Amino acid sequence: MKISGIGVGNMGGAVARRLASSEDFEVTVFDPSATAMDRCVAAGAARADSAATAVKDADVVLTSLPTTALVIDTVRRLLPVTREDTIFVDISTIDPMTARAALDLCTGANRPFLACPLGKTPTHAENGAIPLFVGGDAKTITKIGTLLQRMGEKTYNFGSVEAATAFKLVSNFIGMANVAILSEGLAIALKAGITPAAFTEALADTGATSFQSDVRLPWMLEHDWAPRFGVDLAVKDVRLAVESALNWQIPVPVGAAALSQLMSASAHGYGNEDVVAVMKLTGAINAKDLP
Amino acid sequence: MKISGIGVGNMGGAVARRLASSEDFEVTVFDPSATAMDRCVAAGAARADSAATAVKDADVVLTSLPTTALVIDTVRRLLPVTREDTIFVDISTIDPMTARAALDLCTGANRPFLACPLGKTPTHAENGAIPLFVGGDAKTITKIGTLLQRMGEKTYNFGSVEAATAFKLVSNFIGMANVAILSEGLAIALKAGITPAAFTEALADTGATSFQSDVRLPWMLEHDWAPRFGVDLAVKDVRLAVESALNWQIPVPVGAAALSQLMSASAHGYGNEDVVAVMKLTGAINAKDLP
Repeated sequence: MKISGIGVGNMGGAVARRLASSEDFEVTVFDPSATAMDRCVAAGAARADSAATAVKDADVVLTSLPTTALVIDTVRRLLPVTREDTIFVDISTIDPMTARAALDLCTGANRPFLACPLGKTPTHAENGAIPLFVGGDAKTITKIGTLLQRMGEKTYNFGSVEAATAFKLVSNFIGMANVAILSEGLAIALKAGITPAAFTEALADTGATSFQSDVRLPWMLEHDWAPRFGVDLAVKDVRLAVESALNWQIPVPVGAAALSQLMSASAHGYGNEDVVAVMKLTGAINAKDLP
Repeated sequence: MKISGIGVGNMGGAVARRLASSEDFEVTVFDPSATAMDRCVAAGAARADSAATAVKDADVVLTSLPTTALVIDTVRRLLPVTREDTIFVDISTIDPMTARAALDLCTGANRPFLACPLGKTPTHAENGAIPLFVGGDAKTITKIGTLLQRMGEKTYNFGSVEAATAFKLVSNFIGMANVAILSEGLAIALKAGITPAAFTEALADTGATSFQSDVRLPWMLEHDWAPRFGVDLAVKDVRLAVESALNWQIPVPVGAAALSQLMSASAHGYGNEDVVAVMKLTGAINAKDLP
């Protein structure tokens, strides 16, 4: 199967390398960053001079791009230069309206389009250990079954492209808001004189526990800002979730407050730090408050 | 050990019955509700005509009261009618400032005071399966060790009464905000056409999972409003947490937004329903959106 990887950054690159290292896939990549392409070439992918060249004979065009505008733009630009039976699969994190617009563009040009945002991290993607949240035409999903199987550990089929893209946004919306509220709770606890060790131990025995408290509370307490999931990436996803909610007239005041905190963290210069950096906004980073 | 239970409602009653059913404790109760006292008498407790009578010969006065004002008032009123070596233990959910004020009152009257808010539910308390979050004088905590062991499964010692009470508030602050954000995320997902089953299954494979999504997402999807933890109780605890934060100049915009949603739910008449009723504010309760 000939795969064209358009955009091979953190997630797109990991997926491209995973595919290139299998005999079942012939992978050609394009990215404005030569370094990003180099890493894929080292893993067995071919380099293209342009996106148009990369997709020329592709069975599947995999787009993994940082903004919704770029996804639409790229799909629009590449449709005329692809084969008539080329399948477009977007693995970026985009909103339902953009996914629908991309689907409409592809349908207008008689090409199938699937939305397939990815869960977890680039490291998981590199090892095929990610969940895939797919939506779109069922026959097309079946047709690229071996591709999906190679890319991820488990495929969740949400039916429509809107549902698949919304799911990814919602999961980050909830997860990131859980981080924001955890940081606020931690700030109160530290101010009250609760030790980090006592807080960590007792919290696990309450209804306040979460994936985020398991994973990120230790990083908060260690002031470990290394970006496992960075503030600016979180801003993008939570913003798209909030925008979708507002577009659908769903009030999301708690999520909107979390978005504001993430945006404040970005405005304060923490955009490339892990989302745990939102705790800095609570004032809980005074040395006296932490071990 | 002679225990006087002042306030034997949901949690206080469960604890009083648990103690009364053990030979190690002689329990006398007082509550304005005769029915609440009846249940304790049936479990082996003695009934008192007034709080003052109930505490007359007590080794330990256990207060379990619905408001911070009532805790202070009760401690102030009972101090002069207790023995000189009576220990005051408050098991209500109160804020750090109130706990400190109660401690100061007791210290002024030469009586020890411990704050010991309880985790989990009345059912857990009935079976001694609750965590205890204790704070106060270490020697006093040791002195009532057998009492704490009978009351709960595990005792977390936070050192000060401020820390112990803050911990309980913070754990509910985080847990209830997690419920509010989950309900917002669910509303977006349902609007996007994601089925409840797909949402539940896939969410468990993301960073959005939490104690609250494990426990309360099924109730949300079943429109099950039975009050395992009611909106008005949540309002009280989250309000005290937010007030403590503001008093300490800690910004908590996400928690404050969650509090507003809980208060709106109460204002809409859902005060005695489970906190999952906050989802009704998102508009996600249209029949068409749910199974």
